Amino acid sequence: MAKRAKLDDFRVPFFDGGKGAKALSLADFDPSSKPFSAGSKQADRERLTAYAARLDEMQERLHAQRRERVLLVLQGMDTSGKDGTIRAVFHEVDPLGLRIATFRVPSPDEAAHDFLWRVHRQAPAAGELTIFNRSHYEDVLVPRVRGELTSAEIERRYAHIRHFETLLADSGTAVIKCFLHISKDEQRERLQARIDDETKHWKFDLADLEARRQWDDYQAAYAGALAATSTEHAPWYVIPADSKSHRNLMVAALLLRVFEGLDLEYPPAKESLKGLSIT
Amino acid sequence: MAKRAKLDDFRVPFFDGGKGAKALSLADFDPSSKPFSAGSKQADRERLTAYAARLDEMQERLHAQRRERVLLVLQGMDTSGKDGTIRAVFHEVDPLGLRIATFRVPSPDEAAHDFLWRVHRQAPAAGELTIFNRSHYEDVLVPRVRGELTSAEIERRYAHIRHFETLLADSGTAVIKCFLHISKDEQRERLQARIDDETKHWKFDLADLEARRQWDDYQAAYAGALAATSTEHAPWYVIPADSKSHRNLMVAALLLRVFEGLDLEYPPAKESLKGLSIT
Repeated sequence: MAKRAKLDDFRVPFFDGGKGAKALSLADFDPSSKPFSAGSKQADRERLTAYAARLDEMQERLHAQRRERVLLVLQGMDTSGKDGTIRAVFHEVDPLGLRIATFRVPSPDEAAHDFLWRVHRQAPAAGELTIFNRSHYEDVLVPRVRGELTSAEIERRYAHIRHFETLLADSGTAVIKCFLHISKDEQRERLQARIDDETKHWKFDLADLEARRQWDDYQAAYAGALAATSTEHAPWYVIPADSKSHRNLMVAALLLRVFEGLDLEYPPAKESLKGLSIT
Repeated sequence: MAKRAKLDDFRVPFFDGGKGAKALSLADFDPSSKPFSAGSKQADRERLTAYAARLDEMQERLHAQRRERVLLVLQGMDTSGKDGTIRAVFHEVDPLGLRIATFRVPSPDEAAHDFLWRVHRQAPAAGELTIFNRSHYEDVLVPRVRGELTSAEIERRYAHIRHFETLLADSGTAVIKCFLHISKDEQRERLQARIDDETKHWKFDLADLEARRQWDDYQAAYAGALAATSTEHAPWYVIPADSKSHRNLMVAALLLRVFEGLDLEYPPAKESLKGLSIT
């Protein structure tokens, strides 16, 4: 009988200070697998609907309690489905309860600061659920692939990231990081679909293909970054993401588990309001 | 045969420089009326679903074109349904395409600037749809009711608001402002419901009742502000809001009309992508 998949099987081993752990290889994770599928796309969708409603309730409690903070970091290659995940997983969450920070190429003002400056400003406040759509991880991935930083500089950035995320965690922020893992074939199909539909051309730039040509370099850069920054208080998960419905379900399940670990309760009733009659 | 209601019947007459127009009275608008109802709550909901899907499409075009900007300002007494409107009307809009700015009591840093400073920072960028959940209008309503500003000072603030909104409009921002108009009786019921449900106490503060005691003063302050700041490029609409389903439907209809006036098209296909085959 097949062993039932557990979410933690997809958690990147925690960084151990570089003491001889075997290097992480993303090839060990099959992007087309669907370990948390409910059995069919339709069943996945139904389960996601249930999860989404539960997330909505959890977010309301988070907001009501105004104590904990939750940060979801989404990373992945082009077309891996960061935008689609946000839309699908948070469809039922009150838009007032969700803040999405999208990190693009830094502006001159942002680039004039350290690489965590613009990110820190977007950290969730008490009672907030924040999603990072791309993040500070771009600043270790891109310069590594382009050879703009030495490996010693990259290592220092990994350390800065670990310290920064420890600060967030120490201040009551639950941090969860998801790498949306797609295959190169699946990316080809998705890019081709955008090209074949002319109304989607605005989403597409020929420069986007540059990263595809450097596919293997990016996979190695991701493996290095994930291994160096997966920690107990800010773990990385590899999400098999060739199947959109599976991807959504797994991200929702992970996030729900985080929420359920927070002991979120509505604040107690106020004595001053009990029995009050409005006139 | 009854005259069919038009959206513009609920538009506050444009400010004419104070040249003897008769004063606006909110009592002329019945909060419990449902002029744009589809006939029943159920029919309202179905129509709203259709509107919401259309808004989603419009928002995508707005984003794709990255030229126009849309700003919806929501104001109203406590429990008038600002939060509920946002949730219901924008349920189908991609959370990535929506930015909500909630204005609370100013922080010390905010209060150390002019009253439009924090608001200007939240103005929509090209391609953005932004909702102001409360707004700079609080800064003419509250000080007027509390007697903290002279009427000359209030008039100067009205002028500042008109100039500011003209700047936004001149820069390509479609501004639409909705006053969610509820009756004092309806507010009583909604407040009482919050008190009777102890899990809702966190939403409630005894100080909230202060504004209710000053109901008539606030109605007068709203009437004054709406009359002084309804302009062709930033009109105010009075939304009968005792019925939630009617309120949602009317706000959605107004916003759709704004979007449809913008001539939003997807950017043209890119020659460089035509016939391209991804490898």
